[in-house]
Amino acid sequence: MHATPAFIQSRDNALLKELRRLSQDSSAYRKQGRVWLEGDHLCSAALARGQKPAIAVFSESFWPQALAEYARAATKNVVIADVLWSDISALESPAPMGFVLPLPEAEGLDGRMPTVVLDRLQDAGNVGSILRSASAFGFTQVAALKGTAALWSGKVLRAGMGAHFALRLVEGLAPADIDRLEVPLLATSSHEGDFLHRAALPWPCGWIMGHEGQGVSPALQQRARRHIRIAQPGGEESLNVGAAAAICLHASAAARDSAG
Amino acid sequence: MHATPAFIQSRDNALLKELRRLSQDSSAYRKQGRVWLEGDHLCSAALARGQKPAIAVFSESFWPQALAEYARAATKNVVIADVLWSDISALESPAPMGFVLPLPEAEGLDGRMPTVVLDRLQDAGNVGSILRSASAFGFTQVAALKGTAALWSGKVLRAGMGAHFALRLVEGLAPADIDRLEVPLLATSSHEGDFLHRAALPWPCGWIMGHEGQGVSPALQQRARRHIRIAQPGGEESLNVGAAAAICLHASAAARDSAG
Repeated sequence: MHATPAFIQSRDNALLKELRRLSQDSSAYRKQGRVWLEGDHLCSAALARGQKPAIAVFSESFWPQALAEYARAATKNVVIADVLWSDISALESPAPMGFVLPLPEAEGLDGRMPTVVLDRLQDAGNVGSILRSASAFGFTQVAALKGTAALWSGKVLRAGMGAHFALRLVEGLAPADIDRLEVPLLATSSHEGDFLHRAALPWPCGWIMGHEGQGVSPALQQRARRHIRIAQPGGEESLNVGAAAAICLHASAAARDSAG
Repeated sequence: MHATPAFIQSRDNALLKELRRLSQDSSAYRKQGRVWLEGDHLCSAALARGQKPAIAVFSESFWPQALAEYARAATKNVVIADVLWSDISALESPAPMGFVLPLPEAEGLDGRMPTVVLDRLQDAGNVGSILRSASAFGFTQVAALKGTAALWSGKVLRAGMGAHFALRLVEGLAPADIDRLEVPLLATSSHEGDFLHRAALPWPCGWIMGHEGQGVSPALQQRARRHIRIAQPGGEESLNVGAAAAICLHASAAARDSAG
C-alpha cells in the first residue's frame, strides 16, 4: 500500500531545509506554497477535516508507533533522524510528527458569508483561537487585514486546531476591501454602543475584532453599522481579544438559535 | 527621592541568578517567595492595581526612557547591562523592564466567593486569559487543582495582565478540597447538560473549567450541581478552554445583570 519512507539524515537535505524555514519563518508558506502542521493533535484534526497531506513527516523514534495510525495518511512518508528533529520543531511535548499540505488557493471575499474581520491582530495564539471559535459558531469566513499575524503560520495553525480547513480565509486586506462585505458589520468597543447581552443581533453578520493594544481602527469603526460592548462588572480592564471574540461569536450563534 | 540604581554587569550577580531562575523555571516563585513581572504592559497593569514592587529592573539602554515613568515605582531600582538582559527575558518585543514583587501570602478557599475552578489546565496562556476573564466578570476567586499551570509563573502573569492582583488565588488543591465551596458548582461539558444560552444561572456560583484534552475529571464532575454545554452550530469540535471560560463567565455576569 505504501512505499518504504525516505530517511533524512543530513542537515543539508532540501526538504529539511524547507521545513526548517516553514517552522521558523511565519510567512514562509507564501513563498513555498505549502504549510507545515506540527504535532499529532493538529495532524489528527486535519485528517478529521478530510485533508490529504502531501507529505507526512515523522521522527525516527516515533515512526514505529506512527505506522499503524498515520502511515497511509499522506501520499509520501518521510522519516527524519531524531537529532535533526529539533531543527523543524517549535513544540515541547506533542508527538514528533507533522504534515506538509499544499497551501489552499487564495480566494476573494464572499460578501454574504457570516464573517470575522481581524484588524491587525498581533498574537498568533489569539488569531488561532478566534478561527476555532469562528468555525464552532457557524462563521464561515475570516477576513484578515494587513498587519494581522500570518494565518497559515505554524503557531496560528496549532492554535486553530483544524479550524483553518472549515473556513474561507482571506488575508492581506486593506480597510476599503471590507466594503465588499454586504453583511452588517458589528465592531467591538470597550466604551461605547449597546451591551452585548441586551442587543438584538443580526444574522448573518460580520464581527470586527481589533488590535490587542489599539482596538478597532477608525477606518473600520466608521464602516461598522453598530458598536457593541461587553459588560465587565468586575472592572474596566479590557478582555483578551480571543476571549472577547468567543463571547461575541457565541452570542450570534445563540441569537440565531433563539430566532429560529 | 530615589537613589542611583544598582548596576549589574556580572553574570554571577546573585539577583541576576535569581531572576534567571524565576524567568526560566515556572515554579521557582514558590522557593523564592517572589514573582517576576516582565514587560512594560504588565508592569503598568500591576501599578494600576496598586501594587508596590520591591525591585524595578531595567535594561541599561531602556533605563533613560524609564526614568520619568517608572523610577519611583519601586523601593529599589536595578539596571542590568544589555548583554545580560536576554538571560532573564522570555519576551521578544515589549520594553525591557520588569518588577520583582513579593509573592502574596497563600490564602485558603473562601466558600462563598464566586469562583473559577481550574481542573489541571496545562497551558499558561489559557490560565492567564481565564484569570483576566474571571476578574472582568466579577469572579473574585480562582481555585486551581494540582496539575494546573503554576499561577504565578511568568507566562500566566503576562497573559493575566494584572488580574492576579484582583483575585484570591488558591492553588495545589485536591478534588476533595473543592467541597469547601458552598456556591453551586457548574461544570462545562462538551456533550451533556443544558445549553448555556437557555440556562438560568445561579449567582454566586463556581464554574469548573477542565483540562485541555480530557475535560473536567470525574471526581469534579460528580461534585458539580449542573452540567452546562455551549451550543456549537458550526460543528462538534471543542472550543479552546480560554474561549469556553470567557463565554461561561460572561453569561454569569449577564444573568446577574438581568436579574438585578
